[in-house]
Amino acid sequence: MRESFENLSSTIVNLKNLGANDVYFWYLANNPPFPFPSSGLPPTAPALPPNAPATPDPDLKINLIWPCTDSHVKKYSRQVARSVTETAQIYRERVRPYMERERAGGRLTWVYNIIDGKTEAEDVIYRTPLSQQQVNEEGFLLLPDLNWDRKTIESLHLLGIVERRDIWSLRDLKKRHVPWLREMRRRFVEATVEMFGERGVEADSLKLYVHYQPTYYHFHVHVVHVALEAGATQATGKAVGLESIISMLEVMGGDEEAGMDSEGVDLVYTIGEESELWKEIFEPAKKERLSIDNGN
Amino acid sequence: MRESFENLSSTIVNLKNLGANDVYFWYLANNPPFPFPSSGLPPTAPALPPNAPATPDPDLKINLIWPCTDSHVKKYSRQVARSVTETAQIYRERVRPYMERERAGGRLTWVYNIIDGKTEAEDVIYRTPLSQQQVNEEGFLLLPDLNWDRKTIESLHLLGIVERRDIWSLRDLKKRHVPWLREMRRRFVEATVEMFGERGVEADSLKLYVHYQPTYYHFHVHVVHVALEAGATQATGKAVGLESIISMLEVMGGDEEAGMDSEGVDLVYTIGEESELWKEIFEPAKKERLSIDNGN
Repeated sequence: MRESFENLSSTIVNLKNLGANDVYFWYLANNPPFPFPSSGLPPTAPALPPNAPATPDPDLKINLIWPCTDSHVKKYSRQVARSVTETAQIYRERVRPYMERERAGGRLTWVYNIIDGKTEAEDVIYRTPLSQQQVNEEGFLLLPDLNWDRKTIESLHLLGIVERRDIWSLRDLKKRHVPWLREMRRRFVEATVEMFGERGVEADSLKLYVHYQPTYYHFHVHVVHVALEAGATQATGKAVGLESIISMLEVMGGDEEAGMDSEGVDLVYTIGEESELWKEIFEPAKKERLSIDNGN
Repeated sequence: MRESFENLSSTIVNLKNLGANDVYFWYLANNPPFPFPSSGLPPTAPALPPNAPATPDPDLKINLIWPCTDSHVKKYSRQVARSVTETAQIYRERVRPYMERERAGGRLTWVYNIIDGKTEAEDVIYRTPLSQQQVNEEGFLLLPDLNWDRKTIESLHLLGIVERRDIWSLRDLKKRHVPWLREMRRRFVEATVEMFGERGVEADSLKLYVHYQPTYYHFHVHVVHVALEAGATQATGKAVGLESIISMLEVMGGDEEAGMDSEGVDLVYTIGEESELWKEIFEPAKKERLSIDNGN
């Protein structure tokens, strides 16, 4: 499959690899300048007009997932959406075991590659000092999200990843994590402004959020430009502001162990009917509810 | 200005008024079928092709605000966005007085018209039974949002409005409101499913959220179809899930009077540089901060 992708270079020109990590590859490229005869594209890129720059600005950003799994295909397929309510009990009894299964089987390899410095090390924008311990409990790092072209400042999209492996999602955050979360937030913002300040990025040009449900179960924070077009990825029912999590933990009753998995924390989110969460957990629960409502 | 809008009917055909309330008017219409000579449009709609239905499906939804204020123009103008943090203190000392000024001067007339049954009464989808009291503390009603074409089910957008006038925004919600909020949520969902169930809407096809900052300071809830394209209006930094507010109040420490204006509840949101909130409150605060940082 990679071969047939490389063959695309006869119809996509100036293919430039931006990076690769595990099954993920990303590129910049150009569409060949049109017009072409409709009966087939030339095998190589035509000569550029005399005044064109040697390498024109890329007009394509390509993400390749190879080899991809059924989950990848489902994630990007058009499907009916459902809004579900995950109570603390459903989380504990059904969703957490699902997360555990998802974490197994090498699906986090690409994240561990980054943390271990095996891939994308040259892309890292900020990293907490490495500690002597094997896993730095408080460590985190910041690097470009694979969806960013690394160029258009108004669509800046970075990814903050924690080093510890025991926080799978926002559900694992507790009151005792508040000072650490605040510090992490501060560093992410500071590092981004330091790197991109010349291009006009200020602290208040940034939005920080996490996904629930996330695509992978290793805690990570999205850092984006406020001007980035807000689509499904920033929508309520998917994105939760980092600061609103911090505020919620801050005002929550209970001791330091109280947190986002405590009784009373219902999380409402949108999932597709093709997702395993829907098929394995929420659809069966709905059917059972309907059956009870109908007196069966 | 209304006159020149009516004149548009020479280039927009089948103009159909959907409703009007105070300064807001909304319509469905059609673009004249193309092709037209590029040198001007015909003064009246051309004859439809023989098989076309007498009234084709509208392809335009038009909102008219007339007469509009500077605030309206600014709201819809392209502008630089800023992410700001509203602490409980900033809310109390600066934002609440701003809200109070905004509420004055007849800007809520259209909301009161709805609550008093003076306008849009025939559009109301659900309303709690009217009480003997002049203002029903627990009352609320549900009707189509003016941005919905009232037709395309996947872009269903309703507006839930509370009758009481003392809840200006989510900042006024307290722990003691939780049972009322839950009941309101349940009724909104039930009424929507009752009305649109035949067209495939189920309880889990709906998303409920509120805006902060909202456009007007009388508490209201957006009820939308999960398939509605999620743009800026649903984005983190603007939309807050109704259930996440309920959860936050539920787990919050303190007595029944603790709420979304309590110490520790920081709200982070995105505003435009043209907004009064930016110009009057957050920009001066930023300048002061920068000046202190620079040792002046």
